[in-house]
Amino acid sequence: MTGMDTITYRPARDELAYTFGGRMPVAHVRSGDVLRVFTEDCFGGLVRGPADLPSRVCRMPYLNPVSGPFFVEDAEPGDTLAIHLAAIEPARDWGVSSTFPHFGALTSTSHTATLQPPLEERVWVYDIDRQTGTVRFHATGSDHSVDLPLDPMIGTIGVAPGGFEARSTIVPDSHGGNLDSPELRAGATLYLGVNVHGAMLALGDGHARQGEGEACGVGVEIATTTTLIIEVIKGVPTVWPRLETDTSIMSVGCARPLEDAYRIAHRDLVGWVSDLTGLEQLDAYQLVSQAGRAPIGNVCDPNYTVLAAVDKLLLPQPQAAYGGMHARLRQHAGVPR
Amino acid sequence: MTGMDTITYRPARDELAYTFGGRMPVAHVRSGDVLRVFTEDCFGGLVRGPADLPSRVCRMPYLNPVSGPFFVEDAEPGDTLAIHLAAIEPARDWGVSSTFPHFGALTSTSHTATLQPPLEERVWVYDIDRQTGTVRFHATGSDHSVDLPLDPMIGTIGVAPGGFEARSTIVPDSHGGNLDSPELRAGATLYLGVNVHGAMLALGDGHARQGEGEACGVGVEIATTTTLIIEVIKGVPTVWPRLETDTSIMSVGCARPLEDAYRIAHRDLVGWVSDLTGLEQLDAYQLVSQAGRAPIGNVCDPNYTVLAAVDKLLLPQPQAAYGGMHARLRQHAGVPR
Amino acid sequence: MTGMDTITYRPARDELAYTFGGRMPVAHVRSGDVLRVFTEDCFGGLVRGPADLPSRVCRMPYLNPVSGPFFVEDAEPGDTLAIHLAAIEPARDWGVSSTFPHFGALTSTSHTATLQPPLEERVWVYDIDRQTGTVRFHATGSDHSVDLPLDPMIGTIGVAPGGFEARSTIVPDSHGGNLDSPELRAGATLYLGVNVHGAMLALGDGHARQGEGEACGVGVEIATTTTLIIEVIKGVPTVWPRLETDTSIMSVGCARPLEDAYRIAHRDLVGWVSDLTGLEQLDAYQLVSQAGRAPIGNVCDPNYTVLAAVDKLLLPQPQAAYGGMHARLRQHAGVPR
Amino acid sequence: MTGMDTITYRPARDELAYTFGGRMPVAHVRSGDVLRVFTEDCFGGLVRGPADLPSRVCRMPYLNPVSGPFFVEDAEPGDTLAIHLAAIEPARDWGVSSTFPHFGALTSTSHTATLQPPLEERVWVYDIDRQTGTVRFHATGSDHSVDLPLDPMIGTIGVAPGGFEARSTIVPDSHGGNLDSPELRAGATLYLGVNVHGAMLALGDGHARQGEGEACGVGVEIATTTTLIIEVIKGVPTVWPRLETDTSIMSVGCARPLEDAYRIAHRDLVGWVSDLTGLEQLDAYQLVSQAGRAPIGNVCDPNYTVLAAVDKLLLPQPQAAYGGMHARLRQHAGVPR
Repeated sequence: MTGMDTITYRPARDELAYTFGGRMPVAHVRSGDVLRVFTEDCFGGLVRGPADLPSRVCRMPYLNPVSGPFFVEDAEPGDTLAIHLAAIEPARDWGVSSTFPHFGALTSTSHTATLQPPLEERVWVYDIDRQTGTVRFHATGSDHSVDLPLDPMIGTIGVAPGGFEARSTIVPDSHGGNLDSPELRAGATLYLGVNVHGAMLALGDGHARQGEGEACGVGVEIATTTTLIIEVIKGVPTVWPRLETDTSIMSVGCARPLEDAYRIAHRDLVGWVSDLTGLEQLDAYQLVSQAGRAPIGNVCDPNYTVLAAVDKLLLPQPQAAYGGMHARLRQHAGVPR
Repeated sequence: MTGMDTITYRPARDELAYTFGGRMPVAHVRSGDVLRVFTEDCFGGLVRGPADLPSRVCRMPYLNPVSGPFFVEDAEPGDTLAIHLAAIEPARDWGVSSTFPHFGALTSTSHTATLQPPLEERVWVYDIDRQTGTVRFHATGSDHSVDLPLDPMIGTIGVAPGGFEARSTIVPDSHGGNLDSPELRAGATLYLGVNVHGAMLALGDGHARQGEGEACGVGVEIATTTTLIIEVIKGVPTVWPRLETDTSIMSVGCARPLEDAYRIAHRDLVGWVSDLTGLEQLDAYQLVSQAGRAPIGNVCDPNYTVLAAVDKLLLPQPQAAYGGMHARLRQHAGVPR
Repeated sequence: MTGMDTITYRPARDELAYTFGGRMPVAHVRSGDVLRVFTEDCFGGLVRGPADLPSRVCRMPYLNPVSGPFFVEDAEPGDTLAIHLAAIEPARDWGVSSTFPHFGALTSTSHTATLQPPLEERVWVYDIDRQTGTVRFHATGSDHSVDLPLDPMIGTIGVAPGGFEARSTIVPDSHGGNLDSPELRAGATLYLGVNVHGAMLALGDGHARQGEGEACGVGVEIATTTTLIIEVIKGVPTVWPRLETDTSIMSVGCARPLEDAYRIAHRDLVGWVSDLTGLEQLDAYQLVSQAGRAPIGNVCDPNYTVLAAVDKLLLPQPQAAYGGMHARLRQHAGVPR
Repeated sequence: MTGMDTITYRPARDELAYTFGGRMPVAHVRSGDVLRVFTEDCFGGLVRGPADLPSRVCRMPYLNPVSGPFFVEDAEPGDTLAIHLAAIEPARDWGVSSTFPHFGALTSTSHTATLQPPLEERVWVYDIDRQTGTVRFHATGSDHSVDLPLDPMIGTIGVAPGGFEARSTIVPDSHGGNLDSPELRAGATLYLGVNVHGAMLALGDGHARQGEGEACGVGVEIATTTTLIIEVIKGVPTVWPRLETDTSIMSVGCARPLEDAYRIAHRDLVGWVSDLTGLEQLDAYQLVSQAGRAPIGNVCDPNYTVLAAVDKLLLPQPQAAYGGMHARLRQHAGVPR
């Protein structure tokens, strides 16, 4: 973690990317570098008021833009990329949400296909107050409003997939992508397996907050300035995305149906717990069954996301994950432990 | 809530019930009554050590016994039964968990059928210490142990289903049943729609604690003495189970695949929020999408369970649910508000 | 198969049953008996024209009535009941279909819950011409009509479930019930495991024909006179329903999601093929993978139905299933082989 | 359809492609051209006997190679590419199948993740006899063998996806790909929506035959010489793949869970029937519900495949699909009608 640089990147509109994979890098970063990235919102900033219906102002496939990809030096297939989310700052004093025709959990969709007409498309504009740490919801059909806690997160972050694939930024999968989990807030470290030379990290789709499952298909969408610290862990593979905070470790599963996302995440966490503690697999399965949490990420994207989480305090004598990487990155980010 | 009695019930072994519906009542209760019920664990108390493999000592369908049913006077189809969980006390100083052949989330099952042999069947015995509020896990393949927080809950509670049905106590559905959600702890009020004359309430399957999803299919199973306060809400139907705590309201969905449980719960919560606040349906959908939580109950039973929850503080000027029933029952239980 | 009787049964309206299990028998039958049963249509005969919208003229849970149950002498848990469908005759010269609010494959439903309004409810009346063997479809929104082949089947047939359960006749499961498969036509033999003393066979819900999956949730619904020949196979258990025709054997799976119905059926067929041929399990898996068919029954009921089928001619030197039961019942029904 | 050429293409080993999208074309073709393509089997021809376990001789992601892509002149986004399968000839006198660790319908998989060890990996070699039209199965654990009908099909055929994506050839989706449906036999015309300039058609993964669902995850895999006739239908979009034979029209849906594949296919077929006949949408839904078939393609790939099919004879006065394209291509292929 020597020779750390701070790389600042703000994409021009035509530099925004709509896939993971299949794109040339916009910048190079090294282990230990701090990356400050401006990310646009999922609508490319084009939805600013009730009249800006997404299906009218946005054009497929120009949705959910990400900033990047960043070529990470020395990252090779078989390595793990550790990405510490040091800060996620809303870039504007408003956020926006909407319904979108045939998208979301409580509507029929392109895949859960029915003959019914879509729900009405509608836009909600939220006020963001960083002083008070609130996001203000305004009803559209009445004059109700209420303040929700500001809890900024990055909805979409990932690396290039393997197998020569390029995947839409709408999709979450083993390469990361549109995970849409509230756990991707500042203070967390994300571990992603590297699939291609240079990893090709990209991110976007900030949310001022979202409910678990992102039921309507859209969070409180914001542009952000996001600060990351990057580190390559050589020779250690990671199959599905993993997260670590000061208190928890979490495995991420992405699939349909939703129980498969649960299964992927929990099988991974059982293996991880077994590795960190020396517990036999069945013992780790038992412990996770009683001590685990299973926060739902999204139930609207092409793959749904479920996390399997366990508090470190509930593990017997665990080793530090990835050799203590999270604590080091935390310190590097200036957070005393 | 006048004329309250305390009814105490401890079933003889051959009084245990294995269905909701299709059984004669064991006792009558009235609105306002306090019901103290002994409940056996899901194995009928027969699994007490490593040698007591459930598939050997238990015989189908004599699994997951419930105590009851209780005939609730004046409860008729179209009413709602409010059940306040005043206390859930472990009845012994140990609990037990296990794997079970072809049952659980991380194994193929009778329905997610494969040609693979089952995982090994194994038993874990936990120490329960009510003084320290801990449940001690002991590994079976090594000498690890760790204390988990004691967090007692009732896994199975419900009324008779409608349509002349009788359902196994293994099944969760709109009548309640094997919901297996950690949210069913003391302090919560459960609302169940009444389907038959007298409602026919029954309960069992206590857990000293469980992880979200009950991954291995079995919690830390305990016998309990559970104290309920019962109240009939006349003329108010409830379609899917609902929960209320001092801070939250929650709707319960039970289905396969897991996303349908999520959908059921969230559609119900959107309607409930709309009713309590006067928000238009789409506004309530939007608010729940940003403010909601979605705790998973079980991913192992014949129907999976997901809850949709929202903090009352995040609702704009809500009315009290069910006319303030939870607060009154809370007070009745001796908890000052 | 000595001492065969012909039992004729036509239920009075208030004798119709709406569950499998939980009902007293309407008649006794013995092995070798011929049973001629009148079955009402799924609407109890109340939907007779475009104005008879099912949600208006029918009242829950009085849908999908069955005739029975019939107590089968000498049938005990652990036995198999063989039911040869000797004839299925439409009882009227018309049939009826409909859409039904929030029911069917191409609409959101009670379980695949959305916020959308239901599809329009509408009734279609079909002409049935037994001379020409046709069912005439008439469009409702234009003057198109077309003749479809008459292909009568029994939608709902089953025995009482085990575990003290009583299940709605809407539900298909391991006890049979609302299987809704076009394969349940005359000439087929159905094998059902016996779960309770006397088996308690019941049937209803005839269709003049239906498409695979019964997409709109409703077939061409008819009353029928159905002729069955019954035989108890002692000491031979059957876990999931099985079917045999002159050319094929088929296993039935009922579950959600649909792939679990596929898995159940195929695992059962792999085991059955292995038993009949002496092939090792993996060889049977391989053979079924290349030679099998997988006709979909329903994708609308509380459990979906998929069959796994294989032509007997594509099996190497198979024994006759259930000791040649199908051929004997076929002969008994007067069909020379 | 003037100026027809016959283009013959046989890829060198290092020309095989493993994605749809993200590849440069290997040849140009025009409407009316006849394309004779050699396709390797899904193992790249490397599995030739029992000792050649796929997980040992093949290396990810070098599985399921396709020949192509072919740049189709004048094919632009918004057009439809009609591909008539004029002939599919096995290129060798043997085919091969296998189990594969954690892949297939009757095993836990990477996504339906469990803690169980995988099923044994095993190889089956089939004899193909084009004279007799048979594929001979040989058991591996006993000396059984049996002849199955030869029924060659192309498992994988598609165009580049839109949205700048490149997808693994293992995946079926709206661009086609690994559909794995027995309906893709000679005599069928496949309609695919064009997503990118030049369409970028590719194909491979021939099967001498497969069962519905491809239960073990692998068909009777063969190299083929496949003859296609190509035609661009300008200005007519196609959303999901469609098939036409002399007797039927079929829509293809690819998704998980399996019911979503069913829904996609049936919603598309309802719309198609409505377009061809002038039936109102609800009438078309009703007709498909009674007249439709729903053949399952695969229940093992990253997306499952279901078709919705209806016989043309069961449609009231239908127009010819795509302006009679199938009949013209049939004639062009030398088949008199």
